[in-house]
Amino acid sequence: MNFEFCKLLTFNNQVVGVGSGSTIVYAVDRLTERVRQEKLNIVCVPTSFQVSTKLNLDTLFFFFFVDAALTLIKGGGGCLTQEKIVAGCAKHFIVIADYRKDSKALGQQWKKGVPVEVIPMAYVPVSRAIARRFGGEAVLRMAVSKAGPVVTDNSNFILDWKFEHAQNWKEVSTAIKMIPGVVETGLFVGMAERVYFGMEDGSVETRDHPIN
Amino acid sequence: MNFEFCKLLTFNNQVVGVGSGSTIVYAVDRLTERVRQEKLNIVCVPTSFQVSTKLNLDTLFFFFFVDAALTLIKGGGGCLTQEKIVAGCAKHFIVIADYRKDSKALGQQWKKGVPVEVIPMAYVPVSRAIARRFGGEAVLRMAVSKAGPVVTDNSNFILDWKFEHAQNWKEVSTAIKMIPGVVETGLFVGMAERVYFGMEDGSVETRDHPIN
Repeated sequence: MNFEFCKLLTFNNQVVGVGSGSTIVYAVDRLTERVRQEKLNIVCVPTSFQVSTKLNLDTLFFFFFVDAALTLIKGGGGCLTQEKIVAGCAKHFIVIADYRKDSKALGQQWKKGVPVEVIPMAYVPVSRAIARRFGGEAVLRMAVSKAGPVVTDNSNFILDWKFEHAQNWKEVSTAIKMIPGVVETGLFVGMAERVYFGMEDGSVETRDHPIN
Repeated sequence: MNFEFCKLLTFNNQVVGVGSGSTIVYAVDRLTERVRQEKLNIVCVPTSFQVSTKLNLDTLFFFFFVDAALTLIKGGGGCLTQEKIVAGCAKHFIVIADYRKDSKALGQQWKKGVPVEVIPMAYVPVSRAIARRFGGEAVLRMAVSKAGPVVTDNSNFILDWKFEHAQNWKEVSTAIKMIPGVVETGLFVGMAERVYFGMEDGSVETRDHPIN
């Protein structure tokens, strides 16, 4: 992925939020290269331990899907809250993804659903409330390298909501976050300004937010 | 406060969420008395360490204000998230308070503001976003018995938003919770069904939610 992924930014003397996910490692490599070559002066704000160390990325799992309106599902790696905090602070929120993450309707390509970070004591009522109001099933994400559920970097749990059909994502995103005990959802609605898709043949496709 | 504070409930074979605050100690005493006298079989869900131990209540501080539409500000003791989770699960959410907590418009009687639980890394952008959008000032709550900020039972921080005038509380409650990094607000809008006020002369006044 050797394209200019940040044409919107000049970078020098800027603060750059650096996201999480399987694609970000390429962006960090390219960014490092530019900083060296162009002697840029930037400050990076990482959204995860993963990015701050860049260690052993293959052992983590991620997801990140984009629909036609640039709504994203993010949070396979459990960093959704930090991601959203950093994205919410950004003047420009730019997404890079590979072509497999493009879908006309969210969930078309990906069945793991929408991650929802919850206060541990609330996972049962939140799970029930989501299923009752929006259908599907919201399942507690279990850990692999320890017994019991995944515990996030914020000491919370994650529910993966396996929805049954496309929704009004803006409404759903608000309604889920308003459930007491919900810390954040992995739905990023109306936040991304542009997505660069790295295609199978090495080319790059750009998609802008409809209102931009 | 020796009135029958739970006329709406029969109690036997019920699960009872028990809130936090300066008044709850009286409710717990009365509840204990009824359980003994009437041999009730109930399960209590406490919303705080305070209630689960009932220790040294005078060293904690609380606030809890009620307006004419039964909107509450709660969370002086830092248990707002647990309180809201338990309240959100309740079929009947009944509030007991003393007369000093009654106000026609929220904030009229109380200047400490609305507590907002936040993920620590987000306290600066959340504080700025609240002040920019709704006026006033959102101040990090500092600890007394340790250096630095108060850390909640969920390992988060608390901002106290000192608002300048009455607001559309439903809108504000949604808008603040939607800011990335906000875990919960101390605004309870449209949740309380009934409030019992213990008056100065020992009598009790009842106020029901307008839509009930």
